[in-house]
Amino acid sequence: MKVGLIGLGKMGYNLALNMLDKKYEVVAYDTISEQVKKITEDGAQGVDSLSALVQSLEAPRTVIMLVPAGNITGQVVDELSGLLEKGDILIDAGNSNYKDTLLRYAQLKEKGIHFVDCGTSGGTEGARHGVCTMVGGDTEALERVTPLFEKISIPDGFLKAGAAGSGHFLKMVHNGIEYGMMQAIGEGFEILDKSQFDYDYEAVARVWNNGSVIRSWLMELMQNAFSKQPNLENIKGVMNSSGEGIWTVETAMELQANAPVIAMSQFMRFRSLEDDTFHGKVVAALRNEFGGHAIVSK
Amino acid sequence: MKVGLIGLGKMGYNLALNMLDKKYEVVAYDTISEQVKKITEDGAQGVDSLSALVQSLEAPRTVIMLVPAGNITGQVVDELSGLLEKGDILIDAGNSNYKDTLLRYAQLKEKGIHFVDCGTSGGTEGARHGVCTMVGGDTEALERVTPLFEKISIPDGFLKAGAAGSGHFLKMVHNGIEYGMMQAIGEGFEILDKSQFDYDYEAVARVWNNGSVIRSWLMELMQNAFSKQPNLENIKGVMNSSGEGIWTVETAMELQANAPVIAMSQFMRFRSLEDDTFHGKVVAALRNEFGGHAIVSK
Repeated sequence: MKVGLIGLGKMGYNLALNMLDKKYEVVAYDTISEQVKKITEDGAQGVDSLSALVQSLEAPRTVIMLVPAGNITGQVVDELSGLLEKGDILIDAGNSNYKDTLLRYAQLKEKGIHFVDCGTSGGTEGARHGVCTMVGGDTEALERVTPLFEKISIPDGFLKAGAAGSGHFLKMVHNGIEYGMMQAIGEGFEILDKSQFDYDYEAVARVWNNGSVIRSWLMELMQNAFSKQPNLENIKGVMNSSGEGIWTVETAMELQANAPVIAMSQFMRFRSLEDDTFHGKVVAALRNEFGGHAIVSK
Repeated sequence: MKVGLIGLGKMGYNLALNMLDKKYEVVAYDTISEQVKKITEDGAQGVDSLSALVQSLEAPRTVIMLVPAGNITGQVVDELSGLLEKGDILIDAGNSNYKDTLLRYAQLKEKGIHFVDCGTSGGTEGARHGVCTMVGGDTEALERVTPLFEKISIPDGFLKAGAAGSGHFLKMVHNGIEYGMMQAIGEGFEILDKSQFDYDYEAVARVWNNGSVIRSWLMELMQNAFSKQPNLENIKGVMNSSGEGIWTVETAMELQANAPVIAMSQFMRFRSLEDDTFHGKVVAALRNEFGGHAIVSK
């Protein structure tokens, strides 16, 4: 079976190789022509435009896009809405905001094109050898893409999550949980690091990964990280974020769902990006005003 | 080799069976004589007092205690300090506060008795078939107990954590991390539950356990819990705690280590125990005072 793939970045390229392994014929497009050339050498059919991609597939088509969330995803969907036909399926496997997804679903539904949202987890290694997929969309579309997702996903790592948007929503919440788990792990090691004891952090992560309640893939990653840098001495504690944590907190607010730990994890990420804070200045000024407490001048 | 075991509760009893499997001769004592009788039938030598336990072992002795933390642990240590001899090793495998452990370590060191602190994780199943152990104490004592711990622990699940107190400290922080991870997972499902989508939570936990970043033993436990109750309909959201979360937060304060997510997890547990709150009354009263906002009367 032929599948169209748009986007040959780290995730998309590995997904292409994964699909080729599973004997799919992959028609691939990327704005970077070197990537298209490369995947052609790996066995895919490369094309140089979205319209060429659509023309290379027979209706009803299945096209997966793995491009940056936001404007770029929107532009690709807009262009494809003029190229795809009724009955075709377009799968957004990127990290789109589920609200954008719902709009795009409605936009394509008007033309009879199925829009399927797929939240993916597991990183590039997962994309290459077996990804974790959470997929939302119309029942008919989900049934049609099930064989494909079962082949590219890790065993038991594919979920038909429900209606349109439910896949990206689930991936968003997954990332919110991930932020909270990571912050909790980080705080634990912070306490160990400030303690009177002299722990070997790699050994700590190892023992916590064998039989303890907190054994987890994240702790395995920490064991790996500490094996390379016993005290993470070459890493600055700057915690960037990709947007899904913020969306989770915004969503929690809209739903009036209590999520203080996920929210705090996001706030600590913001804090980590700043060398100084305005709230710090305010509190210092107030302590000085009411108690004459010394301030640290700039 | 003979080992003394004090405490035949859920953890202690399973640890006794574990040691018997590993061909240790176990001399066991508990204040509940039925438990002693039962473990005797399982192959241990039962005794009816601490002094009988000490007399049944040849110096230098190894005695493990698995009794409730706090006063009971203190009383057992006090009594044993008058019964054990120089060179004996007493292992506290309970959830003691590391500060108490440091005092008990000093108390026994005066008499030349080694006090070893062992943080354990993995629950009763772990105690039975292979526990996760984090052990602190003098180097000499740790070397002597290493063969025992290697046998009763899961492979790679035994750590010589460092000096006296470091085992219980590490277990405390482990539980703090556990609180944060659990709260993050809980908040994620809370957001799913308030969303517009209709998720099958068991299926969600399953897909998150296969290839995703948040795969973990805790998520496996949730998959199991949701398989029994799809919406946890018979469980009230009361979150008790056993003390180690509080100690972690107190310790973070003393060390000036930032641990807002772990602290918030503990605070949310307190909140879950209350039907109403005084801070809620205060905020309601203030809103009424400054803005005339309606209050809910009792």
